[in-house]
Amino acid sequence: MAAELIKGLPIAKEIRVEIAKDVEALKAKGVEPTLAVLLVGDDEASVVYAQSKVKVGDGLGVKVDLKVMAADASQEAVLGQIKAWNADPKVHGILVELPLPKHLGKEAIMEAIDPKKDVDGVHPVNRGYLLGGQEHLALVPATPLSCVALMERAGIDLTGKRVTLVGRGDTVGRPLASLLIKRNATITVCHTRTKDLAAECQRGEIVVAAAGFAGLVKKDMISPGATVIDAGINATPDGKGICGDAAPDVEEVAAKMTPVPGGVGSLTTTIIMQNTIKAIGLQGLGK
Amino acid sequence: MAAELIKGLPIAKEIRVEIAKDVEALKAKGVEPTLAVLLVGDDEASVVYAQSKVKVGDGLGVKVDLKVMAADASQEAVLGQIKAWNADPKVHGILVELPLPKHLGKEAIMEAIDPKKDVDGVHPVNRGYLLGGQEHLALVPATPLSCVALMERAGIDLTGKRVTLVGRGDTVGRPLASLLIKRNATITVCHTRTKDLAAECQRGEIVVAAAGFAGLVKKDMISPGATVIDAGINATPDGKGICGDAAPDVEEVAAKMTPVPGGVGSLTTTIIMQNTIKAIGLQGLGK
Repeated sequence: MAAELIKGLPIAKEIRVEIAKDVEALKAKGVEPTLAVLLVGDDEASVVYAQSKVKVGDGLGVKVDLKVMAADASQEAVLGQIKAWNADPKVHGILVELPLPKHLGKEAIMEAIDPKKDVDGVHPVNRGYLLGGQEHLALVPATPLSCVALMERAGIDLTGKRVTLVGRGDTVGRPLASLLIKRNATITVCHTRTKDLAAECQRGEIVVAAAGFAGLVKKDMISPGATVIDAGINATPDGKGICGDAAPDVEEVAAKMTPVPGGVGSLTTTIIMQNTIKAIGLQGLGK
Repeated sequence: MAAELIKGLPIAKEIRVEIAKDVEALKAKGVEPTLAVLLVGDDEASVVYAQSKVKVGDGLGVKVDLKVMAADASQEAVLGQIKAWNADPKVHGILVELPLPKHLGKEAIMEAIDPKKDVDGVHPVNRGYLLGGQEHLALVPATPLSCVALMERAGIDLTGKRVTLVGRGDTVGRPLASLLIKRNATITVCHTRTKDLAAECQRGEIVVAAAGFAGLVKKDMISPGATVIDAGINATPDGKGICGDAAPDVEEVAAKMTPVPGGVGSLTTTIIMQNTIKAIGLQGLGK
């Protein structure tokens, strides 16, 4: 029997309705939600992501101020732009599209962003609030938040569930671990050095694949009835499309599964807008 | 057969020899390692911990500047003291003994400490470096570091090991999870909402007990041959001594085990001194 698909778009739409209401309320109080996006160079995926933010923001009444800098922009120029946005009370969210050109110092740039405007959750202070269990103060990266939103809004109760995370990266695996612990799941974090990945996955009532390897999670690694959340975004072998970390036939054993494309990735831009609204609250505006 | 005990004191002594060498080298370069400790009120355990720091520092050549404030000290007075230490280039480490009297705002006080002097690892920036995998930049809380030091110095290779953590607190469980992921262990984090704690512990080649409940980890929950690291510090029923989270008879099945007292807790003050040396490096001194 094929798994019930947990599709991203309907859930994104649901969240967008909530955001649109928040935007309306903020505008009535004189706050025009504004997200500043910095794109350095012309990395193909980054251009698409940046444009998607402009479009989604447009539909929600969130102003997206997209600034494009040349691929050879200096560290000083990038930091100067961030400082200007930090100081601008009309800018509520700041996001730098990654990856950055290699000559730029990524860490210093991430740390230059005002933590209260850091809607991508890349500043150490925001990661620290997350690890410290102070999620209400934290701006959290969009992909792990999307994974949680998909599960919660698909009616999956996380309390006491055994969740196997495949992947320990700093953008998905580790922040997601903190989110899930907070939601009372019993988590196991697996990675390239895990001895028996199949056994760890088979124990999972929920398996989250976030390793960045196409087809890593195979059908025989999933217990019948499990939920599979696929946060992988990989190029297909022919280079023409994208696919997840779970092999396609996982769908034959899982009870519920997020598709790729059309699952986790369909939510992230919406979550960035939700983070922008949260940022406005953290800045003490709109009250 | 009784477990081989991994005792804290010999390992603490080993680390102290290393610290003493670092102190000597720093003093030759004109840096006198100095740790400032703030004790507000007269919580009995806190007084003991503070005095222990003075004594251990003394033996290592680390100057410990213990400042005692009355239990009714104001938030402003506490913050003022921290700011003075932040600004003092002769103070390299700052530690506020916890718990603080209830009228004080703990979070604001923790966040007031210069992250590069935060030898107790309580500032969100330090937690964030840890979650972000930038451990080299982070000052990490002493208890999880002690757990790791005990395992590593007892010759236990963490790579690929299944480690069950019992406890998800912000001072031990969650920071320790990050440290262990970085060291290639496959970790499972358990807590009060975990459905079958016994089964999770039985899978652990290493079990770390850090829940703060005396005797929570029982003999039948440990697989023969496993290593048990007991980070619990609980009062014994008669109130006269301390005991760990593992029941005493766990020793009959574990291959290796840390005693309580005399295990993890015997290392923490030494680790604070080690953090003070690391802090000096993070401040760019002694180079």
